[in-house]
Amino acid sequence: MNFDGFFAQELTRLQEEGNYRDFAELERHRGAFPAATCHNGPGEVTIWCSNDYLGMGQHPDVLNAMHAAIDRTGAGAGGTRNISGTTHDHVLLERELADLHGKEAALLFTSGYVSNWAALGTLASRIPDCVVLSDALNHASMIEGIRHSRAQKVIWKHNDLADLEAKLAALPAGQPKLIAFESVYSMDGDIAPIREICDLADRYGAMTYLDEVHAVGLYGPRGGGIAEREGLMDRVTVIEGTLGKAFGVVGGYIAASEKLCDFVRSFASGFIFTTALPPSVAAGAAASIRHLKVSASERQIHRERVAQVRARLDEIGLPHIDNPGHIIPVMVGDPVKCKFISDTLLREHGIYIQPINYPTVPKGTERLRITPSPVHCDADVDRLIDALEDLWTQCQLARRPMAAQ
Amino acid sequence: MNFDGFFAQELTRLQEEGNYRDFAELERHRGAFPAATCHNGPGEVTIWCSNDYLGMGQHPDVLNAMHAAIDRTGAGAGGTRNISGTTHDHVLLERELADLHGKEAALLFTSGYVSNWAALGTLASRIPDCVVLSDALNHASMIEGIRHSRAQKVIWKHNDLADLEAKLAALPAGQPKLIAFESVYSMDGDIAPIREICDLADRYGAMTYLDEVHAVGLYGPRGGGIAEREGLMDRVTVIEGTLGKAFGVVGGYIAASEKLCDFVRSFASGFIFTTALPPSVAAGAAASIRHLKVSASERQIHRERVAQVRARLDEIGLPHIDNPGHIIPVMVGDPVKCKFISDTLLREHGIYIQPINYPTVPKGTERLRITPSPVHCDADVDRLIDALEDLWTQCQLARRPMAAQ
Repeated sequence: MNFDGFFAQELTRLQEEGNYRDFAELERHRGAFPAATCHNGPGEVTIWCSNDYLGMGQHPDVLNAMHAAIDRTGAGAGGTRNISGTTHDHVLLERELADLHGKEAALLFTSGYVSNWAALGTLASRIPDCVVLSDALNHASMIEGIRHSRAQKVIWKHNDLADLEAKLAALPAGQPKLIAFESVYSMDGDIAPIREICDLADRYGAMTYLDEVHAVGLYGPRGGGIAEREGLMDRVTVIEGTLGKAFGVVGGYIAASEKLCDFVRSFASGFIFTTALPPSVAAGAAASIRHLKVSASERQIHRERVAQVRARLDEIGLPHIDNPGHIIPVMVGDPVKCKFISDTLLREHGIYIQPINYPTVPKGTERLRITPSPVHCDADVDRLIDALEDLWTQCQLARRPMAAQ
Repeated sequence: MNFDGFFAQELTRLQEEGNYRDFAELERHRGAFPAATCHNGPGEVTIWCSNDYLGMGQHPDVLNAMHAAIDRTGAGAGGTRNISGTTHDHVLLERELADLHGKEAALLFTSGYVSNWAALGTLASRIPDCVVLSDALNHASMIEGIRHSRAQKVIWKHNDLADLEAKLAALPAGQPKLIAFESVYSMDGDIAPIREICDLADRYGAMTYLDEVHAVGLYGPRGGGIAEREGLMDRVTVIEGTLGKAFGVVGGYIAASEKLCDFVRSFASGFIFTTALPPSVAAGAAASIRHLKVSASERQIHRERVAQVRARLDEIGLPHIDNPGHIIPVMVGDPVKCKFISDTLLREHGIYIQPINYPTVPKGTERLRITPSPVHCDADVDRLIDALEDLWTQCQLARRPMAAQ
């Protein structure tokens, strides 16, 4: 077989479908983010699609903690968690995370992806006869973890309680059940009815596994996520989160009972057989969490900035999904126009917003996913809105009725 | 179902089998490694089981590069590679890696585990009718990747060319084949016959996928691994490596043709849907690779230190696997004694060597896996040998005939 010929053919197919991805090569400017240099683009740009939602990736506490850990202990951990790679910084971070979510324990993974894949894969494969009830819009990492487990899987309609209940009721009463869902869904920005899902879990004796990666740091009085804001952390069996979005660094985790965390620690291949994160990453993440536990101002300004961008989009009639969260999906509905708008924003306006096309979102719902942050200023917002208004006219895209001027 | 009760029961079973793992909580001392504080143990210890084989985790070039990247660009990447997370530092690192292995391209993953899982999973599932021929002792991350692909899998006897050929010959000539193996095997320290495996691959039209995680940085004139040392890099289709062992930081990668890397980049869920590594990690790893491309002294002293420890073990008759690599498995052959020796080394001698028991190695082959490094000094070696001699006597363990005094 001509392997490279096969790869070339598959890549050509992707390009013809408009789904081939070019990566923008960015260099963020510490202290000036969202400003960055785009090395394979127009030079200086403003980033409007980062998941560093609060700008914690440049917070002095975080950077100082990373510097200090490097000076104290060096670059890497030097081994798997079992073989010389559990550092003091990992242990302190896991304590911080358990406290954040009001759980007995927490377990750190190399990424949010791996935490979902490894934790769901281990729970679903090792609990005898386990069936996973998975929300239809769950993230790829959850889907792959459930798939890897080879456990029975039942998909329920996105955020649809009636469908979830019907599917729970149709299963044998004695069968172990695990309901897997997210709080804030990344592409539409909508939020799950956690309380009602927990009620159903109680009624049918199911475990709950809640992915809060787009919520931790951002919601709740201490940044514990939507479950904290709603006073529901103790009702969810497993809270999964990331250190790579609002906390600004990298890594993933679960917080749960001591026994559950110890079980995953002891049996998850993706936890056991991998080098631990560098101590500096753990120290930086812990500093970020500690800061956001006591400082609400980032969350406050973030909410105001999101509301401001939404209001300005309404003023010029640009269609966006009006969700209760912090992600603003501006709908284009056409993959070629979506890519064109993104390219033109970058090239002519120095505004970087990656186009979101199929398969990340369904065809016909192509969009610009805008993530305002507390470090965007009024002038940034003005430039964004002016550029979008120009491009909407140029592309003859539909508008909603204008808001009253 | 009582989930926590089930977890507790499984953990108890693990403890009764002697396979429950306690993690040593370590804090390495930058500039003084292998010295570290063991926070849940006796205090100051010497680490003898790290995979930071060359001590690059404290090399000034690496630490300076990390500090500089944090100062220049902040903590995290802020997104997936596609959505704002490809930084200039990632691109520079991928170029460094492609050059290291003499390949057209390289692709960075969050860990070596993820690189094996995602690359093998993607290749094996997406190449139509692909069959994977997997060495019997391949690492868990390769096994899980192949399993995840659901491709046909044929296991050949460890490093056994006759068995590999028999299995290749038994498959249909036209079926796409992928031979997956490692260069240095971590637990026995033995080395694969790469040239002969490539000969077989050529004869039967198979791709080769070579895991060099325990070899990169350590072997070859520029640290390209065993394939570089043997002049075989161009004959291997995919070289997989890690940034978390000899390079001293964290992360994994593949190096291969441009088309193959682009294919994995475009289709691998575990690459696409995960936050990119922090720029400081990429910058630190690139500095480590650059240093080891031109400096052979670490490799030279490393070899001398390994030979010294082997000779000293022979002098006191301690049984170890006499492999051609840098890992010294000292055989205990009993899980309880292995754990006892490890505990006593830590508690009474301040020497940290994690016991390696089942399921990491077969029952009856329990061992201490010793990894000498250029940063261990003569006094460290003396203390290690004295302590092992004491404990071998105390535990009445078998010795080999003493070397001539």
